[in-house]
Amino acid sequence: MPAKNIISKENSFIRKYLQLRDKKKFRQEEQAFVIEGLRIVQDALQKPEQVQQIFCTETALKKYSELLLFQQQKIIQVSDALGKLMSDTEHTQGVFAVCRMPEQQAEISPSGKYLVLCQLQDPGNMGMILRTCDALGIEGVLFTECCDVYNPKTIRATMGSIFRVPMFFGNTPEELLHMLNQLKIISYASVPDKNALPLTSCAFNSGCAVWIGNEGNGLPEEIISSCQKITIPMRGGAESLNAAMAAGILLWEILR
Amino acid sequence: MPAKNIISKENSFIRKYLQLRDKKKFRQEEQAFVIEGLRIVQDALQKPEQVQQIFCTETALKKYSELLLFQQQKIIQVSDALGKLMSDTEHTQGVFAVCRMPEQQAEISPSGKYLVLCQLQDPGNMGMILRTCDALGIEGVLFTECCDVYNPKTIRATMGSIFRVPMFFGNTPEELLHMLNQLKIISYASVPDKNALPLTSCAFNSGCAVWIGNEGNGLPEEIISSCQKITIPMRGGAESLNAAMAAGILLWEILR
Repeated sequence: MPAKNIISKENSFIRKYLQLRDKKKFRQEEQAFVIEGLRIVQDALQKPEQVQQIFCTETALKKYSELLLFQQQKIIQVSDALGKLMSDTEHTQGVFAVCRMPEQQAEISPSGKYLVLCQLQDPGNMGMILRTCDALGIEGVLFTECCDVYNPKTIRATMGSIFRVPMFFGNTPEELLHMLNQLKIISYASVPDKNALPLTSCAFNSGCAVWIGNEGNGLPEEIISSCQKITIPMRGGAESLNAAMAAGILLWEILR
Repeated sequence: MPAKNIISKENSFIRKYLQLRDKKKFRQEEQAFVIEGLRIVQDALQKPEQVQQIFCTETALKKYSELLLFQQQKIIQVSDALGKLMSDTEHTQGVFAVCRMPEQQAEISPSGKYLVLCQLQDPGNMGMILRTCDALGIEGVLFTECCDVYNPKTIRATMGSIFRVPMFFGNTPEELLHMLNQLKIISYASVPDKNALPLTSCAFNSGCAVWIGNEGNGLPEEIISSCQKITIPMRGGAESLNAAMAAGILLWEILR
């Protein structure tokens, strides 16, 4: 049987959930994050050890209990009203979970193909990129100085890919570049510059990493000057692509 | 000199602005829509006849008056407080405009390459797709049963491309397909189906239209069965790409 019906937002489990949802600092301290929605909770349960707690509203339990049955000992029942408070969406399914962040970083192999996200700030872009990485099948995503990947907005946009894409969190861009250089992985800087090597003229052999920069400002100058500059040829009127779209087209070409 | 400083939200110009911002039906009746931000207002002014009115806050006028100088007769000054009310963003630049919808549909040429958006419902996706169409340079975008392209969220995501991409609004999917068939333009239905023709095996010769469907449900069965089915090969874990991302990768391949 699921735990008793929590109705108070002062309950310690609920307070922790809300803090994890809203505070990056708290997520980092606890090395945990929250997810919402039946499908993504099922994705997380592919590795049950990464799921600390599941919250279900009364309504959700009636509807989905069969789908979550084997996880009964982790389920805490909450009132429908509390579900609304916990939810980050307009129409909640009433299924939530607290998950542990992976303890280890993804391993970086000298023969792998990687995407580096450098100073990306939009959680929606970040989530869409992770979903695309997962669908197209890149070896891993490396992050440096980005917005929090465990932000609920990012998580939602990943559609579960957060649990499938190998991730590596670097310290500074310079340190990450140095690490890749040591591994003899070639770094390419994606820039909106007509003089850079067009993407279509570039053979992305194994052992490469493509860097995507900030939505407004692109990549730091020091990174650009230390990498092979590549660009997506554009013949239309817009001056640049959205960062997620640029990443998607780059990924498609790298993995072609 | 700009018109007198409007401070009341009951002013008829302001009421019209707000209704155009919030109501699709009103936009259609008036054949007009609103834009916000200096850059996109400048984009709109590439064809001055499509700009009916410009609103600037006092602060914005001090900052940007030189950039909008030759449009003085169209500028109405509003108070900073009113600017906040008119704004659809967190930090407004205080520059707004009312624009006319184009009177004519884009011309469809039998030798052109087109993207068809069918029952797309997310304004952000739609805007991102239009920006990508503009950057990569497709001949036009055809719409059928989509969310309103003149929704402020879509407009913002287009980054000005709304004024540059030729658009054609079809009635039903069936009628649009019939029109394309009459023009001998080959229609391709994009589907997440491993048995469809992989995008990489498809030569998109001139005279083609690629159809993208609804975010959750894809394209209508009747359309799929009347088109050549194509798919983006995926080797990863995610089952599908975001609709905008799929459109971007398709556009990239069509225009390659």
